Amino acid sequence: MTAVKRIDPGPRLSEASVLGDRIHCSGMVPEDTSTDISDQVRQVLGEIDSLLAKGGSDKTKILTAVIWLADIRDFAAMNEIWDAWVVPGQTPARATVEAKLTDPRMKAEIMVVAAI
Amino acid sequence: MTAVKRIDPGPRLSEASVLGDRIHCSGMVPEDTSTDISDQVRQVLGEIDSLLAKGGSDKTKILTAVIWLADIRDFAAMNEIWDAWVVPGQTPARATVEAKLTDPRMKAEIMVVAAI
Amino acid sequence: MTAVKRIDPGPRLSEASVLGDRIHCSGMVPEDTSTDISDQVRQVLGEIDSLLAKGGSDKTKILTAVIWLADIRDFAAMNEIWDAWVVPGQTPARATVEAKLTDPRMKAEIMVVAAI
Repeated sequence: MTAVKRIDPGPRLSEASVLGDRIHCSGMVPEDTSTDISDQVRQVLGEIDSLLAKGGSDKTKILTAVIWLADIRDFAAMNEIWDAWVVPGQTPARATVEAKLTDPRMKAEIMVVAAI
Repeated sequence: MTAVKRIDPGPRLSEASVLGDRIHCSGMVPEDTSTDISDQVRQVLGEIDSLLAKGGSDKTKILTAVIWLADIRDFAAMNEIWDAWVVPGQTPARATVEAKLTDPRMKAEIMVVAAI
Repeated sequence: MTAVKRIDPGPRLSEASVLGDRIHCSGMVPEDTSTDISDQVRQVLGEIDSLLAKGGSDKTKILTAVIWLADIRDFAAMNEIWDAWVVPGQTPARATVEAKLTDPRMKAEIMVVAAI
């Protein structure tokens, strides 16, 4: 009997897995991929807010984030949205690299682990 | 004195590290790189099964998985094997991106963290 | 009130986040990007040593490392420096893939999670 709790479990993946004092989220991607990098990052961060809330966490408790950008030249534009979203004094550890994502219209994917 | 337990420690890396209620696995790659994406993913998932067993875990307890595909166009073929492998109701959080791997014949690498 | 401790918190990210018995570090990149892969990896590993020390950990307690190389052909050169740095019997789980980094002069980025 596993003590792992799944949030929004699907046949392929769960949106997040919870064990003990940590929630491990799936990589969040934008729902509307017709928009620019700023809007796509805003969507992704909004999804992370919703997902963390379902697990009893929030953005002040993010331990670590991996950010994949389809085009690393979007780094500054992503950071502008990110910087306005994070909470001073409670910023997570982070890494950002370029990678092709599963849909060529997606410009950003972010995967976080947070405390609960 | 560290409480970290290593599974199959080598001079460069350990196949996995165990601390408390979690096992952190190395990125698993196919041993036989002459085969197609389906077979390579099957090999990788088999290696994950074996490694988790050594740590007292199994695939129903995977918290999170990062999947790197050498060619993101293999996403559907990878998912077909993945979907047959995961256990309904116990699917992990997941992210999949494209990345060149350490051997150009390798088509997939998967790194998981699981509960014990 | 979160129990997460931040190490060197900045407006964008913290160098590391600590919760319970684990320290989650940001991806470390070389400060001097004018040098070759060997020197850049040496710089990054030195930064990891410093950061882990601030969190009360050290390289014998690293659970897992993700290594991004801007050019995967630097794999052997990176490993030479890595192999001399890790401690026999206490090597971490690891994955290495290629990815463009946030500055085109950077050749390597390494992100670790360690026990405390």
